[in-house]
Amino acid sequence: MGHRMSIDDAKDALLQRDRDWSVAAAEGRSVDRIVEYWSDDAVVIPAGAPIIRGKAAIRDYVQTSLAIPGFQIRWRPEAASVSADGTLGYTIGENAVTVPGADGRLVTIPGRYTTVWRRDLSGIWSCVVDIWNSGP
Amino acid sequence: MGHRMSIDDAKDALLQRDRDWSVAAAEGRSVDRIVEYWSDDAVVIPAGAPIIRGKAAIRDYVQTSLAIPGFQIRWRPEAASVSADGTLGYTIGENAVTVPGADGRLVTIPGRYTTVWRRDLSGIWSCVVDIWNSGP
Repeated sequence: MGHRMSIDDAKDALLQRDRDWSVAAAEGRSVDRIVEYWSDDAVVIPAGAPIIRGKAAIRDYVQTSLAIPGFQIRWRPEAASVSADGTLGYTIGENAVTVPGADGRLVTIPGRYTTVWRRDLSGIWSCVVDIWNSGP
Repeated sequence: MGHRMSIDDAKDALLQRDRDWSVAAAEGRSVDRIVEYWSDDAVVIPAGAPIIRGKAAIRDYVQTSLAIPGFQIRWRPEAASVSADGTLGYTIGENAVTVPGADGRLVTIPGRYTTVWRRDLSGIWSCVVDIWNSGP
């Protein structure tokens, strides 16, 4: 991250990165644009579905999700924190996934998520772990 | 962490810390011994229940859980990763929570978790975020 970037700057950059990702995901137009936020070795732990490991499998997962009629995902980070050296960080926040219910009508399932991010030498934050669940 | 501890050492220490915690939690005898693994500002995001913020609220949550007849929690980390400076890390793994079902008989719910950890100046890893969900 270079020595001139403060922890607060790194945290703000990570929050903005997560927000940018959320916009790309909510638009749902480009699989590539959504998938590029994950690291090659990322692990996705979806509520109610098997763990997905690695970018190729994640790409299939995103493509399949976007093909579901009415599918939409939205999220908003509420907080971020980074390591002292700015190489690892996380965000937590709320999300909402819209999918067809058993009767075919769309249902929106609210949830909470945590994403862990790694910052590479070029300064790019990539998501390495992505997990969410539903509340009460 | 000092400059003599390698990333691998830090990762191994974090894995062991998570395993030690699991032993204390599975025994379920001492609330204090379980709660001491969380930071004062930790956030717990349980599957199917409201978010719990801060050690006092987490302590109540643990105490209430341990008072449930037949309650048990177990987990096993499968992987850990830490920042280059060893100040932030995470583990992922599988867990299982046993609670009375609707008919009063005990049911064990398998799940997957991610915990994020911060390492303080004295070298102690404390859990800052704790989230889990159920699979398919």
